[in-house]
Amino acid sequence: MDVSPRDLPLAAELPPTLVEELTLLLGERFTQSPGVCAHHGHDESHFPDRPPQAVAFVESREEIAALLRACSAHRVPVIPFGAGSSLEGHVLAVHGGIALDCTRMDRILEIEPADMLAVVQPGVTRKQLNNALRGTGLFFPIDPGADASIGGMTATRASGTNAVRYGTMRENVLALEVVLADGRILRTGTRAKKSSAGYDLTRLFVGSEGTLGVFSEVTVRLHPLPEEMAAAVVRFPSMQAAVETVIRTIQSGVPVGRVEFLDEVSIHAINRYSKTDLAEAPTLFFEFHGSPSALEEQVALVQELAREHGAEDFAWASRPEDRSRLWEARHQAYFACINLRPGCRGITTDSCVPISKLAEAVLRARAAIDASGLIAPILGHVGDGNFHTVILIDPEDEAELARAEALSAELVAIAQSLGGTCSGEHGVGMGKREFVAHEAGEVGVALMRSIKAALDPKGILNPGKLVP
Amino acid sequence: MDVSPRDLPLAAELPPTLVEELTLLLGERFTQSPGVCAHHGHDESHFPDRPPQAVAFVESREEIAALLRACSAHRVPVIPFGAGSSLEGHVLAVHGGIALDCTRMDRILEIEPADMLAVVQPGVTRKQLNNALRGTGLFFPIDPGADASIGGMTATRASGTNAVRYGTMRENVLALEVVLADGRILRTGTRAKKSSAGYDLTRLFVGSEGTLGVFSEVTVRLHPLPEEMAAAVVRFPSMQAAVETVIRTIQSGVPVGRVEFLDEVSIHAINRYSKTDLAEAPTLFFEFHGSPSALEEQVALVQELAREHGAEDFAWASRPEDRSRLWEARHQAYFACINLRPGCRGITTDSCVPISKLAEAVLRARAAIDASGLIAPILGHVGDGNFHTVILIDPEDEAELARAEALSAELVAIAQSLGGTCSGEHGVGMGKREFVAHEAGEVGVALMRSIKAALDPKGILNPGKLVP
Repeated sequence: MDVSPRDLPLAAELPPTLVEELTLLLGERFTQSPGVCAHHGHDESHFPDRPPQAVAFVESREEIAALLRACSAHRVPVIPFGAGSSLEGHVLAVHGGIALDCTRMDRILEIEPADMLAVVQPGVTRKQLNNALRGTGLFFPIDPGADASIGGMTATRASGTNAVRYGTMRENVLALEVVLADGRILRTGTRAKKSSAGYDLTRLFVGSEGTLGVFSEVTVRLHPLPEEMAAAVVRFPSMQAAVETVIRTIQSGVPVGRVEFLDEVSIHAINRYSKTDLAEAPTLFFEFHGSPSALEEQVALVQELAREHGAEDFAWASRPEDRSRLWEARHQAYFACINLRPGCRGITTDSCVPISKLAEAVLRARAAIDASGLIAPILGHVGDGNFHTVILIDPEDEAELARAEALSAELVAIAQSLGGTCSGEHGVGMGKREFVAHEAGEVGVALMRSIKAALDPKGILNPGKLVP
Repeated sequence: MDVSPRDLPLAAELPPTLVEELTLLLGERFTQSPGVCAHHGHDESHFPDRPPQAVAFVESREEIAALLRACSAHRVPVIPFGAGSSLEGHVLAVHGGIALDCTRMDRILEIEPADMLAVVQPGVTRKQLNNALRGTGLFFPIDPGADASIGGMTATRASGTNAVRYGTMRENVLALEVVLADGRILRTGTRAKKSSAGYDLTRLFVGSEGTLGVFSEVTVRLHPLPEEMAAAVVRFPSMQAAVETVIRTIQSGVPVGRVEFLDEVSIHAINRYSKTDLAEAPTLFFEFHGSPSALEEQVALVQELAREHGAEDFAWASRPEDRSRLWEARHQAYFACINLRPGCRGITTDSCVPISKLAEAVLRARAAIDASGLIAPILGHVGDGNFHTVILIDPEDEAELARAEALSAELVAIAQSLGGTCSGEHGVGMGKREFVAHEAGEVGVALMRSIKAALDPKGILNPGKLVP
């Protein structure tokens, strides 16, 4: 693992002239209140809290630009902050500095149904956008579970349950407005669906985790709401049977809306937490999107594949409220898992492998977990070859933490050896930088560093994250 | 327009020690033969020929690396060369230097049906790959018309007729092996379908037009062959009626396989060139992909939309050979247009606009062409909002060239004012750099330049292209 935040020196005090400047700029929206700083010093990851020295609640691109210019002059770190739902410590102020809180930039600037796009400020959350889209016949499909901010989702190249059909933030961000480290304002992309006009600057910033610039506007693609939806819960005799069903489904080209795997431990956790009564066995949650006849075809094919792998009958959730309850339970799975062990925190792994290697990856993960003696439910967006384990640890138990980190590293090594990646969707943050170094290789790391140096020569943007 | 290649000084002689080094490295595969150089001094664009001073027929990544190291030491330009089918002068040696011909790197290294991917050398062409895929149930959908090399298609972020359904090279390149300017070998991406592990280096190189590195391997996504296909030719009473039908089709979310617009001049050109007898009216070529029932639904909906816009009945091409003839004719459209006027060359425009603005963009393009007095058929991949005009010019007539360039600039300005881009798929090359400057803005251009400087500090990689 990288240097633990515990080992880093505490940051020096903020320069008084900077504090003065930012107070003049933002008034009460610039604060060094310990409570507010503490609130911005943690996310959903297992890393120890690292509060910033101040928090700036910005309300416009101009304020972001002015703040970045000031912090640049003083070489003070700036850490963009959205919903705080990162699982990789993205928001921790490991080198001190100022949390740039974007939650007040929460206006939906434009919904353009004719071009199926929306322009939003970075603090708009995905649920907020989807509420605003009611009645347009369109939706924003990217769904990482948490009600994350769209700025944060762009920064981590987020995906989630629907990505198997609709793609990730990589495919669904059309254009960006970015404030660079020195306060310059960059606009990338156009409203056209495709372009060959120069370097793909949009994609360079999607997934850059706040290390190259701060988003002030995001233009996202919307999709037509499916004519019909159907969801089903399918129980399998073994993990392997469930995963093999997914592999065959994807290889058959069935455009499933979602397909989620949950092992028996995850289902147990969900039952306890969400008061459901699902059978505690390896399970797939399916959702199908399309016209009635398309749905019929998809369902027939998937049912046949599932039966060939020993599945019991599909339990259907046809009514919208049943479907909502199902996905709500799925989305609470992380908290359900954490809740299995009072006071624990979760180290969430995020392997993603080529679909043909999924069964091997999941089975080897299970074996590694069993050998470790730790508790770690397995669940994930298996249609994309992406699955998580939530390793439950007592954050005060150094020995257990070390075992968990060793297990996490082992799962990454398995994924990478199978042609996969250490992070399907959560990003690199604090904890996965050494894995990225291995995955990108020496030349890849050198290139990432030279891009970082070219865009943020003073290193003020979210230092200590992503770049190995 | 940018500085014309005519105005650039001729390059100095190649340094004799470099010639010696490369002869030692490649033997007869390094040549200064005027015939071979002349063959590498033009593409399908209207720009005057600019032959390189030598051509290197490389056969491995190691040879590319050795060549780049040598050229780096001598600061001699290197211009990657694939099929030579660029429409934007990408292969012209405007600052002299060496054409790096990749056509001997034409091995398909791996086809992995279980993960729906293939690993190819850059000189493999799209037809070659599709031939090799026979019997696997998979295909490589990206189809720019020409039998382009996959290295070249990656370099220009190519797309074409199928992109409306399957995406462009942006979505279909999974991973790359790239030789950098100093000879270092970079591997980007993994075989996983998605990743959040660091900067998206793959996307940085897709569309970089040989200015950031030379591809030595490309990993592309494959797609399941559609269960069934049907193609139809539909004639409309007006251009506007045809384009409005497309807009409504896309907004309805119908996943058409292809939808191509051809105006009456294009159809006339095709009839003359390909001996077809299509009615000479504004026309849409459709292709539908899917299961029998999906096809039925799609066709019914599109037929209804077309009828509402005054279309005559669909003329079906159901037999595979009829479909092939149709698409062959479409693919020959560029040459058919050129052939309308003996001895002429074509300046091809490449506007791409948000779908809701397509009718306005096409109608304004038609009006601008009419006002210019030039001949310029309109055709294109309208499902993506992308359309071309082929402005037919006598390359020796400076005044006509100037009028054509003014018309091209006007069409770009129209697209950009509608939220679109100057290049949907052909790339920037020689001629569109000033348009990119306008589109990307001052900050965007500065950023592109700093990325170029970071990756190619000596400026040896395809100088004079892409970067404004």
